[in-house]
Amino acid sequence: MMIREATEDDWAAIWPFFQRIVAAGDTFTYPVDLGEEEGRGWWLLAAPNRTVVAVDEAGVVVGTAKMNTNQAGNGSHVASASYMVDPAYAGRGVGRALCEYSLAWAKAAGYRAMQFNAVVETNAYAVKLYRSLGFEVVGTVPGAFAHPEHGYVGLHVMHRAL
Amino acid sequence: MMIREATEDDWAAIWPFFQRIVAAGDTFTYPVDLGEEEGRGWWLLAAPNRTVVAVDEAGVVVGTAKMNTNQAGNGSHVASASYMVDPAYAGRGVGRALCEYSLAWAKAAGYRAMQFNAVVETNAYAVKLYRSLGFEVVGTVPGAFAHPEHGYVGLHVMHRAL
Repeated sequence: MMIREATEDDWAAIWPFFQRIVAAGDTFTYPVDLGEEEGRGWWLLAAPNRTVVAVDEAGVVVGTAKMNTNQAGNGSHVASASYMVDPAYAGRGVGRALCEYSLAWAKAAGYRAMQFNAVVETNAYAVKLYRSLGFEVVGTVPGAFAHPEHGYVGLHVMHRAL
Repeated sequence: MMIREATEDDWAAIWPFFQRIVAAGDTFTYPVDLGEEEGRGWWLLAAPNRTVVAVDEAGVVVGTAKMNTNQAGNGSHVASASYMVDPAYAGRGVGRALCEYSLAWAKAAGYRAMQFNAVVETNAYAVKLYRSLGFEVVGTVPGAFAHPEHGYVGLHVMHRAL
């Protein structure tokens, strides 16, 4: 697996699993019916923010990450990031590799920390992964996410110093 | 004092104290050098989000609030808001009135909670006001704000159910 800069041409490969993940409505605070063009704008970020893809040995896009400054002004020393892995390639370390990549990028870019603003507390896989990479739950906003199966669940704010 | 919908024409009255507050760099995560036109875009929100002004008996704009959905999709039942009061009119209950107004708006609009994502922990006046109106600190992101006097201080995530 290799992680490289995403191009506009990659969107056609990202969109099918992006749409599937967003439409499931259990992990992202995105409109579940987000359209393809609008989704492209939400995911493919302009510099100095970045979007990358993880590709396998055959060049197939198996996951993607976007990385950005979390707040402006005097909060701009903290980065944020989001990750999506094609469910067909789950369990192969793609999410971990993307998260590690984003942490290395943020550190190299001079950010002092990485923050996630809205990690669905029932997304056990993601919470465990982030904890294993040094993130801590700063707090949990109660009932801030309307989970399609579990009802109102909390959104974790997670943080890791760099 | 009266609170009414902000119009484009109100921006000329908002901008002088908006700029002063933003340039001070001790309460908002906005670029401290935010320009007038860009600032207008950050503050005057389109429906269904809202921006209001507080005006005194003479019709002078003494404060303003913007109110918006905090997250999209399955997080869209939580509102957020921001407030600015002209420092020349501080201590007259303008901030409290704007906060109460925004809570009433959010409740009437069907939101289940109000969340503030980045309350500077050294902004004692705001933290005390929000607590007095029923908000609680869900968590504090350590060092997430570069305060011009106090160095790196925390950003509170605050929440109140409606």
